Amino acid sequence: MLMSKLFLPTMREIPADANVISHQLMLRAGLIRKVASGIYTFLPLGLRVVKKITAIIEQEMNRAGGQEILMPVVQPAELWQESGRFLEYGPELLRFKDRKDTWFCLGPTHEEVVTALVRDHVKSYKSLPLTLYQIQTKFRDEIRPRFGLMRGREFIMKDAYSFCADKKSQDETYQSMWDAYHRIFERCGLQFRAVRAATGSIGGDMSHEFQVLAQSGEDAIAACDHCGYAANVELAEVRVKPALAMAQSGLPYEEIKTPNQKSIAEVASFLGIGEDRLIKALVFDVDGRLVLALVRGDYEVSEAKLKSVLSADAVSPADDKLIVEGIGPVGFIGPVGVNRDIRIVADFSLHGLNDMVAGANKKDIHYAHVDLGRDSHAEFFDIRKAHALDPCGQCGEAFTILRGIEVGHIFYLGTKYSKAMAATVQNEHGEVVDMEMGCYGIGVGRTAAAAIEQNHDDKGIIWPASIAPYHIHLVQLGADKELATAALAIYDELLANGFEVLFDDRDERAGVKLNDADLIGCPLRISVGSRGLKNREFEVLPSESKHRARSWFPWTMIMSQRLRSYCNNNGFLVFSDCGHGRQYVAQSI
Amino acid sequence: MLMSKLFLPTMREIPADANVISHQLMLRAGLIRKVASGIYTFLPLGLRVVKKITAIIEQEMNRAGGQEILMPVVQPAELWQESGRFLEYGPELLRFKDRKDTWFCLGPTHEEVVTALVRDHVKSYKSLPLTLYQIQTKFRDEIRPRFGLMRGREFIMKDAYSFCADKKSQDETYQSMWDAYHRIFERCGLQFRAVRAATGSIGGDMSHEFQVLAQSGEDAIAACDHCGYAANVELAEVRVKPALAMAQSGLPYEEIKTPNQKSIAEVASFLGIGEDRLIKALVFDVDGRLVLALVRGDYEVSEAKLKSVLSADAVSPADDKLIVEGIGPVGFIGPVGVNRDIRIVADFSLHGLNDMVAGANKKDIHYAHVDLGRDSHAEFFDIRKAHALDPCGQCGEAFTILRGIEVGHIFYLGTKYSKAMAATVQNEHGEVVDMEMGCYGIGVGRTAAAAIEQNHDDKGIIWPASIAPYHIHLVQLGADKELATAALAIYDELLANGFEVLFDDRDERAGVKLNDADLIGCPLRISVGSRGLKNREFEVLPSESKHRARSWFPWTMIMSQRLRSYCNNNGFLVFSDCGHGRQYVAQSI
Repeated sequence: MLMSKLFLPTMREIPADANVISHQLMLRAGLIRKVASGIYTFLPLGLRVVKKITAIIEQEMNRAGGQEILMPVVQPAELWQESGRFLEYGPELLRFKDRKDTWFCLGPTHEEVVTALVRDHVKSYKSLPLTLYQIQTKFRDEIRPRFGLMRGREFIMKDAYSFCADKKSQDETYQSMWDAYHRIFERCGLQFRAVRAATGSIGGDMSHEFQVLAQSGEDAIAACDHCGYAANVELAEVRVKPALAMAQSGLPYEEIKTPNQKSIAEVASFLGIGEDRLIKALVFDVDGRLVLALVRGDYEVSEAKLKSVLSADAVSPADDKLIVEGIGPVGFIGPVGVNRDIRIVADFSLHGLNDMVAGANKKDIHYAHVDLGRDSHAEFFDIRKAHALDPCGQCGEAFTILRGIEVGHIFYLGTKYSKAMAATVQNEHGEVVDMEMGCYGIGVGRTAAAAIEQNHDDKGIIWPASIAPYHIHLVQLGADKELATAALAIYDELLANGFEVLFDDRDERAGVKLNDADLIGCPLRISVGSRGLKNREFEVLPSESKHRARSWFPWTMIMSQRLRSYCNNNGFLVFSDCGHGRQYVAQSI
Repeated sequence: MLMSKLFLPTMREIPADANVISHQLMLRAGLIRKVASGIYTFLPLGLRVVKKITAIIEQEMNRAGGQEILMPVVQPAELWQESGRFLEYGPELLRFKDRKDTWFCLGPTHEEVVTALVRDHVKSYKSLPLTLYQIQTKFRDEIRPRFGLMRGREFIMKDAYSFCADKKSQDETYQSMWDAYHRIFERCGLQFRAVRAATGSIGGDMSHEFQVLAQSGEDAIAACDHCGYAANVELAEVRVKPALAMAQSGLPYEEIKTPNQKSIAEVASFLGIGEDRLIKALVFDVDGRLVLALVRGDYEVSEAKLKSVLSADAVSPADDKLIVEGIGPVGFIGPVGVNRDIRIVADFSLHGLNDMVAGANKKDIHYAHVDLGRDSHAEFFDIRKAHALDPCGQCGEAFTILRGIEVGHIFYLGTKYSKAMAATVQNEHGEVVDMEMGCYGIGVGRTAAAAIEQNHDDKGIIWPASIAPYHIHLVQLGADKELATAALAIYDELLANGFEVLFDDRDERAGVKLNDADLIGCPLRISVGSRGLKNREFEVLPSESKHRARSWFPWTMIMSQRLRSYCNNNGFLVFSDCGHGRQYVAQSI
């Protein structure tokens, strides 16, 4: 592509309304433009990235046995009424009436449409397992769209849905999607982790998020380098270790005055002790009943774990009024003397500790010398958010805490939708059963944004080769006629060898051109200037090079049979490898 | 693809709610399923056809210099208010409010969004001409969705928009799109005509429709086989020929009683004369003024031509009340004695005729012996709809009337949108001018439907090879283990040679399998049965063959080096040719 013809409005300034680096760089490098809040147009360069990602997704979904279909954006309300989500879903579901006064919505997801489709046509286990997927435009009316494509309202998503006759088959399908997702994000050239996650509004029995690792990520992940286990810190299982032996004080608990000292930090500072000597107490509403949750002062309670250990449907912080009535004044809550009707769930981190400080359920008073086992009816579970160095629940080695951006999410749905919508099938024993389902999403635009969050420097994007808009950015430095002819010859030669080349033939200063090349971040930059023209050399610069190390290569090399046969033999495939492929191409040239 | 795994619900019965053949066959062959009125899901086979069509479109749009982008489905009302169309567009534009009470609409077309985009980034003629296109989901809230994908509400469209600094450049771009459209529909294997058309609600100065020829087509086209000119009958230019010499009766016009005889047919029958002896008179409201339009009794007035010859903005049938007040009683309108304030526009077909019968503008009375030139202030123009055998306006040879389905439409917009939305550019003389625009649409789903309307028989679809879901339908006739092994070997061999193969490996009766193959209509059917197994032969049947002529080929041929090298050398490209490619492949096998 000649850059003089390309619709590529780059920007030097950082756009005022873009707070994250991927949003800034997507605007500056001319990949996207805003149409309305959370609604964007993909410009030519941005759409090329989207199409590269979708091509990888399609190949891997097909390889995993998925069949591609295309469902509509506009969905009839009646299907959502069947599943019960037309009312449940909340204001992210954009509902409207058509000209005949019938209710419709813009699809934020397609469980209802696809379940109705399969229900109408599949009657026997012989037609299963069946995995249908689409790559399609979705709409969620986010209250606060932000971060560009990270949290937009209209977005492109790959969503797949599997239907099975029994749990075993659904387990296998879930595993094959797990494998496909690994191949997809590996082929996209991304560092990522699959992590155990909560199921949220989609529902179901189990789910994993695929998180692209980036310091700017919104999600915290506890990852074990030893055994490979990873999970959202809310869910990461922490191995129970016996607490460090602590001298038994033997003292009974006693009141100490702590006027107006409510937070852990305040009390610790007031008493001059470490936060790990305090018991942090939080009161939750668990399916309508109060539960007192305790962790060591330097930890946090995970509501997701609490929900899981109590097999609860809903967990939320309890109302202050109920806390005051049922236990004591807010800010001075503790386990001692709590009515036995109220369950006390303590984290294992408190197990075996004594001589702790806890709220006394009386205003401005704490207790010292508390021994949970002795002084309360606490039960012990794993309910804390995982911390760095916490022992991995699988192998006991220390967790590392990583930041991630969720780009994919797979759900083991079970029969939530098939039951609600009567999607049954006859199994091999002749019984009519609800189909077992799974669903599997990938945010395509978000994957592009996450790739930028993970791969950039202060000058611009550094695209993984497999999803870069072009393989090579060819820069002509100077307007000299002989130079222009030489650059065009190199351009043609590269094209003829199957490379995708962005050729900067514009009548612009070298600084402008090189800045744009830095900003756009194609994997390989080839510059042709007057020195190169004189020496019959060109300059090759892999954009991933942190030090922007330049290498000079004899000009004739690019025309050589060696490059040509190299390209023919490899079909430029090394560019599809993540990691080292790019450098290898630079070296082989 | 193994048919035993494919989600392909075929139907034997003709669906009750499908009135046209393409809709029936798309449902029966498992290409689409209805989700709501005018809203469909593309099933795997249907989506394959869509993707083949879009791939051809993309290649040809890129070849013509187009750059692909992706604009949103959901569009802010403020852009439509700028162009004035938010109110103008009518109820097909589905308008709604988001959760923040801001007005949006579902995009039925994208002139506003793309004009705002280009306006914001293009300032100089040096960046022009620029053609941006997308392939994207659109929504038009049709009052009466019908004919399946022909007139749906949600549909996939390729829409392109060109921006130029002057008319000459826009003329060239229009021509290049004209050429690209020819290549697209040729490559889709369709018989079609580009015809002059009216601009409708998109507006602008000129437009051409691309009509796929099919007897079931809604549109009538006057086509000249001699010079290639074609136009909607509403617009087709008819060459002026001197009327046949008619004996001058010399008689003055005189009243004849025609009680209750209002229509042309009634009057002709009542008087016992041919309809071509009558003057048909219609009254129109042309930009707020009455105009009397006349054609020969056996012709029809074209409102589009009337609008054009009068350079009018709007033409519609006049209100009966105004007709009675201004001219005379409805049913007895004629040119004689009409007030000179009212223009009389007569078709050339009436020029030079005398002794005609016309309404007398009095109830139950006509005039005989009317001579338009002598008895009225009529002006003569070409305002009639073209008929079969009418002389072509370009070369004078006789028109043929064809039926067509509109699959594409290109518009020379001029400055309609750029003026309304202040999309200006500095031209090479330093002047700031409105950009000249064009827009260019193709209905993707409708192209698939039109292909079926044009190419089917009583048993099912006969796909043009380039857009067929699979190249070859391999049918295993029988469940014999040796046969199954042989069929699978042929399947693998075909796949390895780059063919797209749908392999019917199902445990079904031969009749069911062959009926499904007839219904689905892949270009080539290869059947392997017991006779084939015995003789080491397989049966090849091109689906286009009207007589379903079967040919037998030695089995070993398909395994042969000859087929392999044929495929390698041709990359199956003959299948991309329209027309004869398929037969050629059959023969070459």
